[in-house]
Amino acid sequence: MASEGSEAQNPGDGGGGGPPKLQFVPFSSALDAGFWHELTQRKLNEYKLDETPKAIRGYYYNGDPAGMPARLTLEFSAFDINTPTPAHCCPAIGTLYNTNTLESFKSCDKKFLLEQAAIELWNTITSGDAIENPVLLNRFLLLTFADLKRYRFYYWFCYPALCLPEGISLIQQPVCLGAKFSPAQIRALQSAYDELCQKEGLTALPYFLIKYHDESVFVSLLKNWKDFFPDQREKVILGVYDPSNFTQYPGWPLRNLLVLAAHRWGSRLHSVEVLCFRDRTMQGARDISHSIVFEIKLPPMAQNSAGCPKAVGWEKNQKGSMGPRMVNLSECMDPKRLAESSVDLNLKLMCWRLVPTLDLEKVVSVKCLLLGAGTLGCSVARTLMGWGVRKITFVDNAKISYSNPVRQPLYEFEDCLEGGKSKALAAADRLQKIFPGVNAEGFNMSIPMPGHPVNFSEVTMQQAQRDVAHLEELIDAHDVIFLLMDTRESRWLPAVIAASKRKLVINAALGFDTFVVMRHGLKKPKHQEVGDSPCNNPCGSADLLGSSLFSNIPGYKLGCYFCNDVVAPGDSTRDRTLDQQCTVSRPGLAMIAGALAVELMVSILQHPEGGYAVASSSDDRMNEPPTSLGLVPHQIRGFLSRFDHVLPVSLAFDKCTACSPKVLDQYERDGFNFLAKVFNSSHSFLEDLTGLTLLHQETQAAERLVSRLTYKHCSGHLTLEKQITKNHHHKNKITEIK
Amino acid sequence: MASEGSEAQNPGDGGGGGPPKLQFVPFSSALDAGFWHELTQRKLNEYKLDETPKAIRGYYYNGDPAGMPARLTLEFSAFDINTPTPAHCCPAIGTLYNTNTLESFKSCDKKFLLEQAAIELWNTITSGDAIENPVLLNRFLLLTFADLKRYRFYYWFCYPALCLPEGISLIQQPVCLGAKFSPAQIRALQSAYDELCQKEGLTALPYFLIKYHDESVFVSLLKNWKDFFPDQREKVILGVYDPSNFTQYPGWPLRNLLVLAAHRWGSRLHSVEVLCFRDRTMQGARDISHSIVFEIKLPPMAQNSAGCPKAVGWEKNQKGSMGPRMVNLSECMDPKRLAESSVDLNLKLMCWRLVPTLDLEKVVSVKCLLLGAGTLGCSVARTLMGWGVRKITFVDNAKISYSNPVRQPLYEFEDCLEGGKSKALAAADRLQKIFPGVNAEGFNMSIPMPGHPVNFSEVTMQQAQRDVAHLEELIDAHDVIFLLMDTRESRWLPAVIAASKRKLVINAALGFDTFVVMRHGLKKPKHQEVGDSPCNNPCGSADLLGSSLFSNIPGYKLGCYFCNDVVAPGDSTRDRTLDQQCTVSRPGLAMIAGALAVELMVSILQHPEGGYAVASSSDDRMNEPPTSLGLVPHQIRGFLSRFDHVLPVSLAFDKCTACSPKVLDQYERDGFNFLAKVFNSSHSFLEDLTGLTLLHQETQAAERLVSRLTYKHCSGHLTLEKQITKNHHHKNKITEIK
Repeated sequence: MASEGSEAQNPGDGGGGGPPKLQFVPFSSALDAGFWHELTQRKLNEYKLDETPKAIRGYYYNGDPAGMPARLTLEFSAFDINTPTPAHCCPAIGTLYNTNTLESFKSCDKKFLLEQAAIELWNTITSGDAIENPVLLNRFLLLTFADLKRYRFYYWFCYPALCLPEGISLIQQPVCLGAKFSPAQIRALQSAYDELCQKEGLTALPYFLIKYHDESVFVSLLKNWKDFFPDQREKVILGVYDPSNFTQYPGWPLRNLLVLAAHRWGSRLHSVEVLCFRDRTMQGARDISHSIVFEIKLPPMAQNSAGCPKAVGWEKNQKGSMGPRMVNLSECMDPKRLAESSVDLNLKLMCWRLVPTLDLEKVVSVKCLLLGAGTLGCSVARTLMGWGVRKITFVDNAKISYSNPVRQPLYEFEDCLEGGKSKALAAADRLQKIFPGVNAEGFNMSIPMPGHPVNFSEVTMQQAQRDVAHLEELIDAHDVIFLLMDTRESRWLPAVIAASKRKLVINAALGFDTFVVMRHGLKKPKHQEVGDSPCNNPCGSADLLGSSLFSNIPGYKLGCYFCNDVVAPGDSTRDRTLDQQCTVSRPGLAMIAGALAVELMVSILQHPEGGYAVASSSDDRMNEPPTSLGLVPHQIRGFLSRFDHVLPVSLAFDKCTACSPKVLDQYERDGFNFLAKVFNSSHSFLEDLTGLTLLHQETQAAERLVSRLTYKHCSGHLTLEKQITKNHHHKNKITEIK
Repeated sequence: MASEGSEAQNPGDGGGGGPPKLQFVPFSSALDAGFWHELTQRKLNEYKLDETPKAIRGYYYNGDPAGMPARLTLEFSAFDINTPTPAHCCPAIGTLYNTNTLESFKSCDKKFLLEQAAIELWNTITSGDAIENPVLLNRFLLLTFADLKRYRFYYWFCYPALCLPEGISLIQQPVCLGAKFSPAQIRALQSAYDELCQKEGLTALPYFLIKYHDESVFVSLLKNWKDFFPDQREKVILGVYDPSNFTQYPGWPLRNLLVLAAHRWGSRLHSVEVLCFRDRTMQGARDISHSIVFEIKLPPMAQNSAGCPKAVGWEKNQKGSMGPRMVNLSECMDPKRLAESSVDLNLKLMCWRLVPTLDLEKVVSVKCLLLGAGTLGCSVARTLMGWGVRKITFVDNAKISYSNPVRQPLYEFEDCLEGGKSKALAAADRLQKIFPGVNAEGFNMSIPMPGHPVNFSEVTMQQAQRDVAHLEELIDAHDVIFLLMDTRESRWLPAVIAASKRKLVINAALGFDTFVVMRHGLKKPKHQEVGDSPCNNPCGSADLLGSSLFSNIPGYKLGCYFCNDVVAPGDSTRDRTLDQQCTVSRPGLAMIAGALAVELMVSILQHPEGGYAVASSSDDRMNEPPTSLGLVPHQIRGFLSRFDHVLPVSLAFDKCTACSPKVLDQYERDGFNFLAKVFNSSHSFLEDLTGLTLLHQETQAAERLVSRLTYKHCSGHLTLEKQITKNHHHKNKITEIK
């Protein structure tokens, strides 16, 4: 039996000449997958880099079938020390030493830890605490290192047992209860034990006192020693709730009880009978008759013994030698769940040391709608996946062409064959292939656009109406709307709907080596609108546009993509040359802009005011950042040729063709009827509606209008800005082409 | 026969009462795939947005089997007007009108183009040029639009034919030559024609004069009219090299000849015999007896006719109606070749309007070695693919783990199963899947590192030696070496080898929300080294480090990744906590840094001095950029929390542990023996060698050394820099951790 072999190697317990010595079955640590899962969670979310010892709980049972090891079980509940102990189980008090590195796991001073635990045990014995509360004798240590990257858990378990210097001599070999007690006595013992448990409100009594006369058996708590054994000559039986399932050997818990007994009562007890109480339910009937009884010689131990006895208890590993164990859960875990845990891990690591205040849940739970699944859409989706976002929906009406895969990182050559797959559907499929835990959907769908008439026939009108309704539903069902299309006018409808529905809009657009990434101003909730909307606010008028106005602009006053324009969107795809049809941009640009679009979203989500947060400008780079992740700009305009970004801030325009109150009111009142007019009309319809037409007439020079867009500059950037305009290959390419 | 039907619809040629009118077989345009391919190339590389008419060449043949259409063939050679005409073919002079958009193709004024061509034809007739050089009568127009995105080519062919107002009456129906000429006469005609061709050095005579007496037949050029027909009463036969394969109808070329004849000789010739010379090789024997002969009435045309006659000639489409034709080459092209063309297209479009001076070949042909196939490696590879780079090689020794795919955009969930595929091999496979035209390879291989001993056994030493040799071979075989690993020390060996081999090194490293992307200084070629190496140059000493020194630093004086450090690299992986083992960075960071690393490489390659180019700093943002793509900085340091980049410049350090002359000399002299010492030793070996140890002793405070790295600031950035250091979560994370 393994118990003997392994036991014999613990010094001071067995061997030698003279009378046979009592041997004990050590605990086998039984750490289940739930324990490791919970350790993973605690490590990631709570302990992080904290290596201080943690209180945990284990338990053991005394009803396992014969031949089973004596298990000390740790489940997911081990970390909650207030969890009730399972029925018929005995609790054990543990200390978890979880290290941050495998090196510190290995180099941990296990001798010292054991000595420390022994001293604590000894103190509870000498102070009398253990007599009051015998569970204090059930201590264990658990040294762990969790390699969360590979789902490997290294651990070393220790159940410290104090050793009596000379070992314990057996006076009478163990026999089973039935051989010594009458059936009536056995029944009486069982009743007495059960009653005491119930009275004490315990699931099991780890240690207790027993005495019997004829048919009657009495059981009592250790602390009642004097009352229970008033007669010095009365036969003393020590009861132990015994996890061992071997007929010849008691389990480990008895060891500390015997040291307590030797220390406490050794002067009176030269020998003592021990009853290892074992329970078993066979075919529905409870049975304790396989409990064992034996008698030992208790070595004397001075009451005021100078030092703490030595202790043993580190568990052997699977090979039977002293060493740690390792469990590789990656092999038995569902790979998909493993992928989910691994992705979470990388994210949670950010919270350990770098950004402890990061609220990951706000990011992971956000539902993102990506309008456009081209170069920008693919890069945005990839970055969202990196941030652990689980709900990603694509809308696109294009098919994958041969030139796409090298620039659109969700597609492959095969996707181009036979006319090409739908981008939206293929993108969603790819996300699932990358990470099965994502909830990705794709809709192969057109977005109706101003200046692209839909009134050719009843059929086309109905299709447009369905497309609008579907887009409205999608925007409703998501939290953040990304505008990632390749024309200006296709951004108009979602910009209007999202503004009306108060959804956060992140817009990205590319030039050849320039880009803009911006958040749209987020209108106030409708009930708060009165008296403070950008429309009633004079901020749109040119005479008030001093740079001081561009400080502290809250999110609801910020402009949208169309606020900077003085013409309504129209059909920009007609009569374009090849280089205007294709997105001709430096290949790295979309990756940079896509990544920044997501990082901007994350920073905004981390701000307590979200989309209403005051916009950061280039100037704010020198100030304390408003979120743990940094600034929350309105716009990031990038210039790859200079490896430079500027952070302009611009106000909502009260004549904006997309987000001005006039447009939103009309949309909210007339719905598709209004939209259809916009799709079917030329520029002038929206321009008349918003007052742009009048403005055009009033202002002789359009240049004065362009100056509305006043950037906020660092002192060093002012001349730079002029330079940009000069060097820019296409002056307004960013806003016009895309 | 199609020829009649289609011909009958051309006005002025057939129908009406009176004597039967002569009808003609129009040309069928035969534009082969080679033509479109060459048009694509010219459009992309030469014409770009230029819409001006281009001279092209076609040809026709007169030896096709009976019943074949009369083809005017355009091959890839059509664009080279000096290409010799194929044997037995007659050239035609074309004008290509290639439009930039489908709209301008459609809206092109075809009536005007035809009138213009008619006037030119008429002018050559009235001026006498056409008599001197009858090929001038063989004109055609080709209107095209090449949709290079979808490989669809729209075209409309026109062979302008001037019309005689009343048509041409047949006096004698066509008969074949054999019915009119004796075999001897036929042989004589054939000989006379061949002799004249040979004399004139032509592959075919398009138009010629014929007369015959008994057995003898004479052939002459149009310009010899007067000498050839001195006798006004002699029978005139006009010869035409005839592409028609129908026994009853001549081909189109005859039309302009008859107008010339009517205009030129109409006063003398009331009727004229026409010989449509047709050639055929049957079973090895040449035969012209199927040529046809007929007689027509030539309508009078005044010598000084007021206006140009009207013209016809736009080809009908496949449906038989007036309209353009379209050929979709994407269907018949090899999809892999199509993918290659499409990828090229997107790149070449950049050269059209945006960066006409871009030398794409320098980028596309560069061979890139990516050391590291993790977050950075994947993003770098993706961006290289976008730039059309065809040779990409990965080195990595890691396997793909479950957390990788969401951040490493070349891997999927399936790659993680069963322990995970090798990153290097899987990355190369993925590139092939994305774009079959790429030449990607992966090597699952470790890079020996300082402080990671390899001298455990003979076997480990030999393995290290093999790894070094392989890395040296790989660096030799590539042009640009990307350092994209996740430890500092793994960058040491490739940095040394690449410096020694004078390869351009691009280095990228990530912090949590900061990154550095840099090019290593490129040492001068070995023969130029003496007297000007950084070692002999005092630029390394601290007293000369005024900011003026940081202007105009050429590439060979720039520092490497290790130049900023005052400790040698060693084992940084021991005893790291989980958040230090994993790359804990904002998910967008690697995409940004990876994209910038490639864009930096491309900008450097575009500079005439390449890696030797003077480094741009943040200050240079205001100056004229040194390349068409912009600046060529030494380093780009990015700060995502502020959405900011700075462009520091730093000098090579004469005590650098990687690129200083002492290290390179030792490496070049002792090879692996030297390297093995570095791998097996602690920091001190390299520090002793380079003199860092002495420097440490001499300078009491290490802080003074750190100030060696003096950034060059914009005035506005100076305070910013201080801010960075203060706010930086890990002060030196960039250089220390990665």
